[in-house]
Amino acid sequence: MSSLPGNAVVAQSGGPTAVINSSACGVIEEALRHRDAITGLFGANNGILGIVQEDLFDLAAESSDAVALLRSTPSSAIGSCRYKLGDLSKDQEKYERLLAVFAAHNIRYFFYVGGNDSMDTADKVNKLAGQKKYDLRVIGIAKTIDNDLVGTDHCPGYGSVAKYLATSVMEAGRDTEAMYTFDPVTITEAMGRNTGWIAAATGLAKRGPDEAPNLIYVPEIPFSEQRFLDDVREVHRRLGRCFVVVSEGIKNAQGEYVSAGAGTDSFGHRQLGGVADYLRQLVTRETGLKARYNKLDTCQRNGIHFASKTDSDEAYRCGQEAVGQALAGATGRMVNLKRVSRQPYRCEPGLVALAEVANGVRCLPREYMDTAGTGISEAMREYAGPLLLGEVPIRVGADGLPVFTRFHRRPIPRKLPPFVGK
Amino acid sequence: MSSLPGNAVVAQSGGPTAVINSSACGVIEEALRHRDAITGLFGANNGILGIVQEDLFDLAAESSDAVALLRSTPSSAIGSCRYKLGDLSKDQEKYERLLAVFAAHNIRYFFYVGGNDSMDTADKVNKLAGQKKYDLRVIGIAKTIDNDLVGTDHCPGYGSVAKYLATSVMEAGRDTEAMYTFDPVTITEAMGRNTGWIAAATGLAKRGPDEAPNLIYVPEIPFSEQRFLDDVREVHRRLGRCFVVVSEGIKNAQGEYVSAGAGTDSFGHRQLGGVADYLRQLVTRETGLKARYNKLDTCQRNGIHFASKTDSDEAYRCGQEAVGQALAGATGRMVNLKRVSRQPYRCEPGLVALAEVANGVRCLPREYMDTAGTGISEAMREYAGPLLLGEVPIRVGADGLPVFTRFHRRPIPRKLPPFVGK
Repeated sequence: MSSLPGNAVVAQSGGPTAVINSSACGVIEEALRHRDAITGLFGANNGILGIVQEDLFDLAAESSDAVALLRSTPSSAIGSCRYKLGDLSKDQEKYERLLAVFAAHNIRYFFYVGGNDSMDTADKVNKLAGQKKYDLRVIGIAKTIDNDLVGTDHCPGYGSVAKYLATSVMEAGRDTEAMYTFDPVTITEAMGRNTGWIAAATGLAKRGPDEAPNLIYVPEIPFSEQRFLDDVREVHRRLGRCFVVVSEGIKNAQGEYVSAGAGTDSFGHRQLGGVADYLRQLVTRETGLKARYNKLDTCQRNGIHFASKTDSDEAYRCGQEAVGQALAGATGRMVNLKRVSRQPYRCEPGLVALAEVANGVRCLPREYMDTAGTGISEAMREYAGPLLLGEVPIRVGADGLPVFTRFHRRPIPRKLPPFVGK
Repeated sequence: MSSLPGNAVVAQSGGPTAVINSSACGVIEEALRHRDAITGLFGANNGILGIVQEDLFDLAAESSDAVALLRSTPSSAIGSCRYKLGDLSKDQEKYERLLAVFAAHNIRYFFYVGGNDSMDTADKVNKLAGQKKYDLRVIGIAKTIDNDLVGTDHCPGYGSVAKYLATSVMEAGRDTEAMYTFDPVTITEAMGRNTGWIAAATGLAKRGPDEAPNLIYVPEIPFSEQRFLDDVREVHRRLGRCFVVVSEGIKNAQGEYVSAGAGTDSFGHRQLGGVADYLRQLVTRETGLKARYNKLDTCQRNGIHFASKTDSDEAYRCGQEAVGQALAGATGRMVNLKRVSRQPYRCEPGLVALAEVANGVRCLPREYMDTAGTGISEAMREYAGPLLLGEVPIRVGADGLPVFTRFHRRPIPRKLPPFVGK
């Protein structure tokens, strides 16, 4: 492949994960080993927005320790955003701006760590660069706790949220066991707006038939309030308690979000979100059982203090692979993970076309849940179990709390007028 | 002191903590070293309720490994409840039932791990035993994440919830830093119905002036919605984001719980709880800023996977001390912690009268907060900082998840008719 000397930019976008910085670390450390080809290395403040706004900083000027510490720093240290670019026809101005920024800074490598919206953006940038004959190599790196990308065995970020949330369910489950005479029902809300991968992973916490979670509800299986109440009553009759995990995105038979029915808030507004709180109220009203709920929200996707080493190491290797593939000439591809061995578990990074990933959503297969649809099957255990193995070593300060990296963010001087589009 | 051969019972009551089992472990392991005096060792299922209902199991029959594993098992492995006993005059029947169960099983040692309600119960049992000339030694062991017991430097359980929640705030705080262009405001709800010890401890997460938490609200300082909105606006203007920690028990100037004003739920019922959700709605409505919330609820009090070793070791030593003091003849006392050195930090177990602990609540001193009342002072750092040090080593299974103890619970045969009181 032809050598292409120039600068590289790394951007992170969308919701953070515990290991998205491991991928960034893999990119940075690998890129710095190839300064002949990758002459400068920039980070984009606030994800793709930072490129649009020409708001870049010098990643090569950060200390090697600050970079190494990325592997135990949660969230998106380079910066993130939710900034959706639409079709090329509709948002052409923005795509051209991206290319203009790349050209102004001789950026020839674009490493984009994100979910399917991000892969869609990367794919369109790559295509526009081809049309405009601007020599650019665009490599995406899979990232999402939701685990809903197609074209990969699983997504970096998923194993860590699974480990953290399964552990939290084990711990809070012991609380419900001890306190059942007073607080018999606990409902834990898991992230996952469209898929049940995260909620289902908490099923790994259940080592015995009576352990938490007793019931799991995922968006892929239509939710019936009557059936749910019957399930809770049955578990409570048998054990005197019931621990439920519910995806934030469960929908009824009409395909409507259950949380959308959560009534009006204290200001009389229609309340979205809070499905666990809604179900807590439903249980108490319809069964008379006292219920409480846990909503770990952003804590679950940033739980580095008990993250999966398997996940973190894979995230790092995906970052390294992205650089290697770009240097070898690949573009318009996302680094994915291929399960090359099931026993013992082993995944290797590979490549998939961005376009293939961009518009798909991979749902939890029905066979990963049990017959009743409220617990996981052996197939799910085999699939997800290995992704939780090992613990990420974290740095703890003299105050007993984790130490995370903090970039200096030396700005790259702007060369273009401000972007006036919206 | 006179030797008093007989059986012992251990009970845990009230809300669990990450280290209440460490105290139980200290009691059990120490008691088993003195089988000459403590001839049998029973656990009470469901806390004090298990004694009332004569529902006991044989702790001496559990394996030494099951007992040792208590030190890394959260929640109350023996069992717990919320079962309030009132004045001797009102609930005399119940207190006499407790003594009847003790007498039927030759129980001469009562070790009770709990908060101030539990210490009140223990005190009254002790007094009634004295009146009835039943030779009994009653020792309480401080337990509460709330840290609101008087007569002790701090409560076992507090250091661990502080470490876990401060870590969670650091992690989720990084999420808000990365996502501020989309999700600028995050509100985390901390336990603490009447005191702000837990919320205030998250202030330890703040190593620099702009780090999370930006604002902390505690029940000891009257809450004004207007002031709160001004605070959020000011932080947001300065940083583009705002991370808030709020005690579930914050009250307005009239002394009413803010959460009690959270309007009606989706069934038209007045909604209690959910102060973070309420404030999230308030922020969005009044400032237009998008806001989200974390409610870790029972997860925070059971987070053994990043618990404080200092806390756990102190909890264990308090359990040991309880046995040693009882064997030496003490009764009607609670094991407390005395700070014998500030630099370096060192606490030693001591004794305080149960009656002294029973009816007090220790609030967060005003000087532990800063002048504005929304951050912590150096005095709070000095007080609480050392309680978070070290990490409890946990056992991790081949599946990458924690392994907790599971008792066999060999029942002690009942000797009395069922209790017919309520």
